Amino acid sequence: MTWMDPRLLFTYDVTFMLASSTRPTARALGRTSRFTRRRAHARGVTMNATPAYDALKSKLSEISDLRSISGLAGWDELVMLPSGEGASKARGRAMATLAGVIHERATSKEIGELLEKSATETLQPKDRANRKRAEEEYTKATAVSAELEKRRAELGSRGYQTWVKARESGSYAAFSPVLTEWVALTRERCALVAPEKKVYDAALDDYERGMSSERLREIFAVVRAGVVPLIQKVYAKDGPTALAGRSNPLHGEFDVEKQAALAKAVAVKIGFDLTKGRLDVSVHPFTGGCGPDDVRMTTRYKKDDIMEGLTGCIHEAGHSAYEMGRSREYAGQPVSDAHSMGAHESQSLLWERMVGLGEPFMTFLLGELRETFPGRFDDVTPELLYAGFNVVKKNSVIRVESDEVTYPMHVILRTELEMDLLEGTITVDDLPKLWNSKMKEYLNVDVESDKQGVLQDVHWSSGAIGYFPTYIIGQILACQVFNAAKRQIEGLDEQIKQGEFAPLLSWLRTNMHERGSECDTVDELMIKVTGKPLDANEFVEYLNDKYTKLYDL
Amino acid sequence: MTWMDPRLLFTYDVTFMLASSTRPTARALGRTSRFTRRRAHARGVTMNATPAYDALKSKLSEISDLRSISGLAGWDELVMLPSGEGASKARGRAMATLAGVIHERATSKEIGELLEKSATETLQPKDRANRKRAEEEYTKATAVSAELEKRRAELGSRGYQTWVKARESGSYAAFSPVLTEWVALTRERCALVAPEKKVYDAALDDYERGMSSERLREIFAVVRAGVVPLIQKVYAKDGPTALAGRSNPLHGEFDVEKQAALAKAVAVKIGFDLTKGRLDVSVHPFTGGCGPDDVRMTTRYKKDDIMEGLTGCIHEAGHSAYEMGRSREYAGQPVSDAHSMGAHESQSLLWERMVGLGEPFMTFLLGELRETFPGRFDDVTPELLYAGFNVVKKNSVIRVESDEVTYPMHVILRTELEMDLLEGTITVDDLPKLWNSKMKEYLNVDVESDKQGVLQDVHWSSGAIGYFPTYIIGQILACQVFNAAKRQIEGLDEQIKQGEFAPLLSWLRTNMHERGSECDTVDELMIKVTGKPLDANEFVEYLNDKYTKLYDL
Repeated sequence: MTWMDPRLLFTYDVTFMLASSTRPTARALGRTSRFTRRRAHARGVTMNATPAYDALKSKLSEISDLRSISGLAGWDELVMLPSGEGASKARGRAMATLAGVIHERATSKEIGELLEKSATETLQPKDRANRKRAEEEYTKATAVSAELEKRRAELGSRGYQTWVKARESGSYAAFSPVLTEWVALTRERCALVAPEKKVYDAALDDYERGMSSERLREIFAVVRAGVVPLIQKVYAKDGPTALAGRSNPLHGEFDVEKQAALAKAVAVKIGFDLTKGRLDVSVHPFTGGCGPDDVRMTTRYKKDDIMEGLTGCIHEAGHSAYEMGRSREYAGQPVSDAHSMGAHESQSLLWERMVGLGEPFMTFLLGELRETFPGRFDDVTPELLYAGFNVVKKNSVIRVESDEVTYPMHVILRTELEMDLLEGTITVDDLPKLWNSKMKEYLNVDVESDKQGVLQDVHWSSGAIGYFPTYIIGQILACQVFNAAKRQIEGLDEQIKQGEFAPLLSWLRTNMHERGSECDTVDELMIKVTGKPLDANEFVEYLNDKYTKLYDL
Repeated sequence: MTWMDPRLLFTYDVTFMLASSTRPTARALGRTSRFTRRRAHARGVTMNATPAYDALKSKLSEISDLRSISGLAGWDELVMLPSGEGASKARGRAMATLAGVIHERATSKEIGELLEKSATETLQPKDRANRKRAEEEYTKATAVSAELEKRRAELGSRGYQTWVKARESGSYAAFSPVLTEWVALTRERCALVAPEKKVYDAALDDYERGMSSERLREIFAVVRAGVVPLIQKVYAKDGPTALAGRSNPLHGEFDVEKQAALAKAVAVKIGFDLTKGRLDVSVHPFTGGCGPDDVRMTTRYKKDDIMEGLTGCIHEAGHSAYEMGRSREYAGQPVSDAHSMGAHESQSLLWERMVGLGEPFMTFLLGELRETFPGRFDDVTPELLYAGFNVVKKNSVIRVESDEVTYPMHVILRTELEMDLLEGTITVDDLPKLWNSKMKEYLNVDVESDKQGVLQDVHWSSGAIGYFPTYIIGQILACQVFNAAKRQIEGLDEQIKQGEFAPLLSWLRTNMHERGSECDTVDELMIKVTGKPLDANEFVEYLNDKYTKLYDL
């Protein structure tokens, strides 16, 4: 009955709409709490020993508010936006404007001054970490000129569009100039942001705080040594032993509506809280949204691929669990953010692979499958289901279609190439040849075209150099954290069989989620969570044990 | 497969997600256009004769971008937000922060300076109007101190909560102190915003630019004189003549899914463009969203009330049509905004009542109803349907449940009371008694309790004083504009019968929608659209003609 005039939002708050809404006190509450906060801050100046830090927190919280709205706009763009070009253009412009506002606030002099003043205040450890995270971000954001950021934004846009066309036509030559520009631009930026660091280490830091190329090379050596031979052995077999002479129970068509209902039920069972988030369908599954109390995850379902929909949903539910578990005490503060992209990926992979593709889970899942698809799984045992879910596909050319055995090598390949590119030991022109030879070496695969090879990923086109290794860090952490959980939670396997996931979730809350960004490095985080630094050996052992049994190697 | 980290949005734009998205160039395009705009502006400084005005437009466009995001957050809050209290609190806080940013930008010195500089530049009429609208808003926003705005926001929040409880318990005494505060605060604000105006005229101006209490009293005199006797005559009858001895074909239960499909089909038919908007379900129907290319409308359907869902949907489609029709040449500029709240309501009411409840529409609608509910409308004629849709309910106590005959008197009653309150000729304590006696006088209704009387509306609790008259202005304009359209579009009635709405929509685009806010007053707008100022007589004649025929008066 009402036209909601955005011009009146500030002044009148459109309370008439709230009157009939299910959430009558929404904005009212928010508003009150904002003023309460301001008053508290005002009081703090005289009553509290950390006035600068308190003021800083208040500023950071406002930036977090704006980011939560930006997160909403991003989710909406991918899930809800009308299809017209006008809607898409308007949203792009509006998001760019909002991003500008956020950047302006995040690099404001005021924050710089508060960081400086708070440096001498006595803070609790978590607050110290919070201040440190804020300082790191501020230093990074202010190190770079607006002009350079503009060039990066421009190249991101142009690079992406160039890549889309180049991949379509399969022409690496059409794309390589963009990559050359990105290498130069990334070097320029890294030299400003962290002149004391190697250029790749500075690039890495955007996604994985404190990680270094040296440490990565150590990790990769362990993974290569343990996984490449495993791949060869697995490839020599026809498939998992349990499936010999049988068809995979997951093959065939499954009603999409029923798949969605099943996936939702499983997501809720493992801890996705529908009062703190939404589950929608989108072309490309992702988790995003507005923060720990409003997490938006998306999935997709295909009639002829029940595995993708189900494991995809569990994967996103893992991301969601991490978000929903963030510290409420430090809500809106950098220290409550996920530790890193790798750590985030570890939580999705822990649920998807360590739990969801593990043997105990099959007992629980089989019950759910039988209920959802009556008759269809009568003859299936948990053992068969386990084999069905864990088939290693041969001829693994495309990263996003690969499995847990071949995936690490895809990621190592890309990371090695981008490291060498940034360090200058190889050139952009060398890339296709190196790509293909590494594919042969690591995965025993012949790449037929650049379209199927070096042009397959979007990341480099938008300047996301240093992002790839977070995928493998995520895999390793997932394994290591899950092993720690198994050691500390008595009867975890049995609980998973019974579909009792609360003990694991609760353990993760305390050990991973609530810790947020309190550690400087992923090694430090892993020592706190598991007792030792990141350890690729655990991951290699896990893979070898699992597939030796499955494939009778 | 991805965690969408809002911290990386500015820098990396999460292009990986776009790679698989249906709208790959969304942000890219937006970003490009933003930079293009900046370059254009930079060039404009030397090449263009209106550098200050051009710079002003660029600033206004950024504010509009942020408002579009605020509109999105408001829509999402009412349609998509998870149910948990945390989500609601976080959204409230985030929206308040964003509102603060918008307010800051809208009241910035820079805008003030550009307004001043552009005052001497030679502008085309539409640009002159645009600058004028911007100046009005700026003057208003900067006239009031942040401290007063804060008090208003606080009272809005507290007032709303107080009203909810007071209405529940039916205690006017619990609510009246809030109203007393609102009267004082509104007077204080109006004296600052427009010291040269009567206090109520200044309050009105927030919703209906250039309207005055004097003009309203003229209009009300005409409506009262023409409608009160009509109500008495209608009340003396049992119902519309065509329904004598028959049951209303709209009574009974109708499948909700089918109702929704029917309403959507009708909305699309009359012009709701699904590539430029969404249609969702919410507890309280409204239209909002992000701007002309992304309009979000909501409806609701009840099993036992097919009329509410259908007419509600047509109503919102009318609001949507106005939004979708806004000038693209002046996109993001104040002059492209709807003229006023009254004008907005006129477009929803034009489609809902003048078209949707009119006789010709019944021929079209009957076909749709027969298709959607096979067998159910076989014996129904357009005449019967017309009568069924246009029953005047007796004992009209609650405004939001009233019909087009009694609604105007509900609105006049409230407006007269708030005018007198602000002008000081009555007090807050007089209100319940005056309310009840006016209800008796205007609607021949005995109000049994304050809950059913003076406490029924939310508006005053949040300080929306001056809002009510826009409802009646909307009704009058709807009638007058539709009459003009009938005069100018040959065969309009026949087109409506056939379900051809494009000629009317196109006429409204040119005459109402694209005009936006180019006029200073609604009278000026009506002269352009219809050839004469707002004329309540046309509305009174319309009602009398229609119901005299329907009820055989």
